Amino acid sequence: MAHIAIEEGIPGILGPMKFRPETTKPLRQLAEVLLRGDNSLTRAERETIAAFVSSRNDCRFCQLSHSAAAAEHLGGDEFHYSLIDSVQADFLSARISPKLKALLAIAAKVQQGGKHVTPQDIAAARAQEASDREIHDTVLIAAAFCMFNRYVDGLATWQPQDPTDYREMGKLMAHSGYTRTEWE
Amino acid sequence: MAHIAIEEGIPGILGPMKFRPETTKPLRQLAEVLLRGDNSLTRAERETIAAFVSSRNDCRFCQLSHSAAAAEHLGGDEFHYSLIDSVQADFLSARISPKLKALLAIAAKVQQGGKHVTPQDIAAARAQEASDREIHDTVLIAAAFCMFNRYVDGLATWQPQDPTDYREMGKLMAHSGYTRTEWE
Repeated sequence: MAHIAIEEGIPGILGPMKFRPETTKPLRQLAEVLLRGDNSLTRAERETIAAFVSSRNDCRFCQLSHSAAAAEHLGGDEFHYSLIDSVQADFLSARISPKLKALLAIAAKVQQGGKHVTPQDIAAARAQEASDREIHDTVLIAAAFCMFNRYVDGLATWQPQDPTDYREMGKLMAHSGYTRTEWE
Repeated sequence: MAHIAIEEGIPGILGPMKFRPETTKPLRQLAEVLLRGDNSLTRAERETIAAFVSSRNDCRFCQLSHSAAAAEHLGGDEFHYSLIDSVQADFLSARISPKLKALLAIAAKVQQGGKHVTPQDIAAARAQEASDREIHDTVLIAAAFCMFNRYVDGLATWQPQDPTDYREMGKLMAHSGYTRTEWE
């Protein structure tokens, strides 16, 4: 049972989001801009960073739903679901671009704390042609999921056990976005 | 020097906020609703939670500026500046209400990770008459500062050394808020 009286049976973050609409509005807008707005990083890359940080924070709800969103952006087939899993198991040996690996290395440092990011981490990303805005967005996505993960787990929200439920959520997140009224 | 090419000499979070206005809008709105919007927790109490979490995350910019905002809400005198410092040194023995102590105990757990919050932490806050919404907002303020702190330090933003600068920022934050156009 959740720590506060949020409506039963609403998965993860959607419970507290319904409980407090005033804070939900900027939270949804932040997710939409960061994960789906215009960007030189693909939506799949950004969802991959979000899912990776969530896995490091041990937030199963965000990890599985954003992994599904990442896989859906890539076609939603089993190959891509496995690819996203492999990033969380060992991103350095995963079949992803060197640039995304360098950005994930930065995200991993941000997850530990902002001061963990070194000039060497930044130089390694630049060597793979990551732009300043891509580095900025990686840091902010990682930081934002350190918030979303704590919000979901800090209130002990209810979470589906069936993996299919996360695939359905991932489809909606990937294709309809974070500010759609159907979530409310 | 900051990790990315943000304008020199702009303090802390204001640098990356100027660099990326699209993400800045929801970040500012979130801070405004959480820290200054209608609430049964006072603005001073909410800024105290924000400053406390920032101190635990070792984010000096957010710690000093939000400490100043908290003190400004209480009158801006030396007694209240010292009071806010004492909360960060040892909140359990600080001269604050038992309810705020119980909420800070929850915030301290959220800072470590969402799953650290226990039913006992929640029960202790309820025993001091904390409402569900107050508990929700405490969790979200703590989670949000785990984001803001990482955003500020993960990009190695420039930070003023003079304590007077933080007092001036605190005054603006407390009395003019987070969505004023003068920040932009």
